[in-house]
Amino acid sequence: HLPFSLIAGPCQLESRDHAFDMAGALKEMTERLGIGLVYKTSFDKANRTSLSGRRGVGLEAALPVFADIRKELGLPVLTDVHERGQCAEVAEVVDILQIPAFLCRQTDLLIAAAETGRVVNVKKGQFLAPWDMKNVVAKLLASGNPNVLLTERGVSFGYNTLVSDMRSLPQMAETGAPIIFDATHSVQQPGGQGGSSGGDRRFVPVLARAAIAVGVAGLFVETHQDPDNAPSDGPNMVPLSEMEAMLERLMALDAVVKASPGGR
Amino acid sequence: HLPFSLIAGPCQLESRDHAFDMAGALKEMTERLGIGLVYKTSFDKANRTSLSGRRGVGLEAALPVFADIRKELGLPVLTDVHERGQCAEVAEVVDILQIPAFLCRQTDLLIAAAETGRVVNVKKGQFLAPWDMKNVVAKLLASGNPNVLLTERGVSFGYNTLVSDMRSLPQMAETGAPIIFDATHSVQQPGGQGGSSGGDRRFVPVLARAAIAVGVAGLFVETHQDPDNAPSDGPNMVPLSEMEAMLERLMALDAVVKASPGGR
Amino acid sequence: HLPFSLIAGPCQLESRDHAFDMAGALKEMTERLGIGLVYKTSFDKANRTSLSGRRGVGLEAALPVFADIRKELGLPVLTDVHERGQCAEVAEVVDILQIPAFLCRQTDLLIAAAETGRVVNVKKGQFLAPWDMKNVVAKLLASGNPNVLLTERGVSFGYNTLVSDMRSLPQMAETGAPIIFDATHSVQQPGGQGGSSGGDRRFVPVLARAAIAVGVAGLFVETHQDPDNAPSDGPNMVPLSEMEAMLERLMALDAVVKASPGGR
Amino acid sequence: HLPFSLIAGPCQLESRDHAFDMAGALKEMTERLGIGLVYKTSFDKANRTSLSGRRGVGLEAALPVFADIRKELGLPVLTDVHERGQCAEVAEVVDILQIPAFLCRQTDLLIAAAETGRVVNVKKGQFLAPWDMKNVVAKLLASGNPNVLLTERGVSFGYNTLVSDMRSLPQMAETGAPIIFDATHSVQQPGGQGGSSGGDRRFVPVLARAAIAVGVAGLFVETHQDPDNAPSDGPNMVPLSEMEAMLERLMALDAVVKASPGGR
Repeated sequence: HLPFSLIAGPCQLESRDHAFDMAGALKEMTERLGIGLVYKTSFDKANRTSLSGRRGVGLEAALPVFADIRKELGLPVLTDVHERGQCAEVAEVVDILQIPAFLCRQTDLLIAAAETGRVVNVKKGQFLAPWDMKNVVAKLLASGNPNVLLTERGVSFGYNTLVSDMRSLPQMAETGAPIIFDATHSVQQPGGQGGSSGGDRRFVPVLARAAIAVGVAGLFVETHQDPDNAPSDGPNMVPLSEMEAMLERLMALDAVVKASPGGR
Repeated sequence: HLPFSLIAGPCQLESRDHAFDMAGALKEMTERLGIGLVYKTSFDKANRTSLSGRRGVGLEAALPVFADIRKELGLPVLTDVHERGQCAEVAEVVDILQIPAFLCRQTDLLIAAAETGRVVNVKKGQFLAPWDMKNVVAKLLASGNPNVLLTERGVSFGYNTLVSDMRSLPQMAETGAPIIFDATHSVQQPGGQGGSSGGDRRFVPVLARAAIAVGVAGLFVETHQDPDNAPSDGPNMVPLSEMEAMLERLMALDAVVKASPGGR
Repeated sequence: HLPFSLIAGPCQLESRDHAFDMAGALKEMTERLGIGLVYKTSFDKANRTSLSGRRGVGLEAALPVFADIRKELGLPVLTDVHERGQCAEVAEVVDILQIPAFLCRQTDLLIAAAETGRVVNVKKGQFLAPWDMKNVVAKLLASGNPNVLLTERGVSFGYNTLVSDMRSLPQMAETGAPIIFDATHSVQQPGGQGGSSGGDRRFVPVLARAAIAVGVAGLFVETHQDPDNAPSDGPNMVPLSEMEAMLERLMALDAVVKASPGGR
Repeated sequence: HLPFSLIAGPCQLESRDHAFDMAGALKEMTERLGIGLVYKTSFDKANRTSLSGRRGVGLEAALPVFADIRKELGLPVLTDVHERGQCAEVAEVVDILQIPAFLCRQTDLLIAAAETGRVVNVKKGQFLAPWDMKNVVAKLLASGNPNVLLTERGVSFGYNTLVSDMRSLPQMAETGAPIIFDATHSVQQPGGQGGSSGGDRRFVPVLARAAIAVGVAGLFVETHQDPDNAPSDGPNMVPLSEMEAMLERLMALDAVVKASPGGR
């Protein structure tokens, strides 16, 4: 079993300079650690809690930045798509198309993403049982694309709280798809601040350790040099300055888990 | 307070003839009962559990049928939209645009629906606390459209089950929007049949009675002349032959509720 | 179907005078309304959130008060028991032994209560599915006591919140036992005030209306002349001064529900 | 930080011979592994789903066996108590009194257990938020006993399912009490087989790995030489023959976790 890969970056693409700063810092850090990196950032936060939340630079401004990060830094890029019409255009400049959790049952979006031939990473809906993701995988396979990743990001536990059921990792792995654990959105408190979502980043390393110990192909962590002033998901992003120590610890754990016979 | 209105129809638009049969029967029934009717049907089931589920006749085939039901039967029509690009076209032939629960946080879709000027009915996401719907209403109001309905359809209670918290009806009513109770999807067991959703229609009248007693502006019930052979949501649709008796009983309840001072 | 009966009283037995004041006022009120009354009060709050919560006057002080309320006011009395050793003694002076929700699976307590021959009212555990109560009923029946009531008081929905699933009323009724809805504890927020439980009494009439409309044999409501200064459950008790108007409204609803053929 | 200790044994005390066989085998195994062992077994299953479930040998028969296991095998013993009257007697022959999850709010039971001076292990109720356990700890401390352990065993997630929120481990650790993870009851499906509880032992090592990675003082695992024929909790007990390999793997994980600076 391979060591876990890292999908990381700031929640939003804020500007070309910010993206290069973040991607460059993460590239250096992961090269030091010997860990595979996919750079993640969003061009549009299409489902903010309220209108006043900043949405990002938009598709047109983002695509050239994605292209340049791939070319100049040599990093694979992941971003999320929200409508089928975006898939083909975005697929030209990114390596992985991500389907947001709320949209994981939207058949047309899944098919359009699959038809690009790019890897498709589907986040499990907060409202779905883990075993229901087999139907989502089947939609993608039937569209001719076997390059599917599934991401756990917590299940709704009622009222402004999510819980991560660690059993979902092996349950989703029965589909054959590599499993990613999103340690950032799993600690979200949806709508928990009234007009925006809250969260508690202290639990990011806690849940990341748990998921790595269960066995995952990848870890998804949003990070920012100054999360408390980030335009979205600040309460649950890990400060960039704390990433390296956290990753080192997780790598040691991952190595032990995957060395043993039953490890993934 | 006005008596409750009824939003009813088969889950899918199956054919022009079937639509006219169903709409005609419901029109006769509700005229007999003296109850306001909105005819509901979907042109596309965009988020079926699996690809093998039938999706419906599609937008192009449906729009003329919607137009004719309005013109020939004089009924207002409601249908659900899934992408912002559909809103303007659909709005030409229906009275109410409905936002599906999974999509209730998709800002662009909400804005596009609001900008048509039509009434917009938003179903509360299975993952949202009732009080979080105020942010959804604010998105619509800020787009210049005050004609908003909110619909309760159950909250996810884990694994293949929904629960309807009746407190959500007055909690959502604090937004000022009229509140609808969807008695059909509240008894759904999402993904409960493996490759499709299950449900238990025996609880439709149970939850409908509860919601009417709490106080609602409208009731949403899907119905079919032969639910067990319907292309979708069969387990939770009420047989057309049982609708009239159920509605009569609910009207008696509603009259008592709304006669008393604290009634809605 | 019979009109609903009322199980009501203050959460705790505070003193003989207070008990007679409350019981007398409720007796007058229910006689005016023509509604059956069981007087409910606890001699010991055995599971307070914290030690500093007041527990009540205790068994020895309470039993003569129970006896006198029965004799002097002619009211049936209900109280809750916490250990098997209490059952026989308590049964001598009350009509209904109540098993608290946390204890609904304690076999010895159920058997000891059943063996008194008194009516036994079991509250459904916050952790149980409605259909699991058939096993609880079977324990009582096998102990030779068919006089069983089951009470719904909400199911845990995670973190300091309960939700009342109205489907549980007909689901539990399949056992053949009369079903009571506890509108007071269903609006509790367990542990929601840190060192004590919170609640929101505004939702007592909301959930009571819903339950009556679904169909119940009885309604359980705690009341107090000054809930905000009551020693326990203050946030969810209904002020005595508001009881009569609420009950009148519920009786009108109940009459409509039970007049119709499918009514319980 | 110390390596994790193991609390293990069969769910029920079945017979003296069986107890000595199990305790002996676990003692040998844990000595080989260099891991601390507490022998766990129950003299009475006081809250079986139904009356037909076997309850165990009872208090009188069990106490001499507990005493002999301590004396002859030199093992500390843990058992659960259900009524305050049992505490003093049981405390004479065991090292740790365990409070069952359903009973974790019963004040008298907590006080009686605390007053024995023995270590008290309280299982978190399936209905409690993790932070609510601080009130339980306070009840024990106020009774003069600081020797408190807290055990996570899953929170009710509705209908015949539990979920283990791994955040609860550090949240409960804020009380200062050592935290145990019960990997056996966390995979229970309460009432899931109609007349008895189901479970899925495949997830015992999954959740154990997650908890060890988060950081715990102890692990609770029920085991049996033939779980499928055990009188209770068969579906979630680990076969004795699989324990050693699982423990070895968990020890390697634990060592890595506790070697790093932030480890517990």
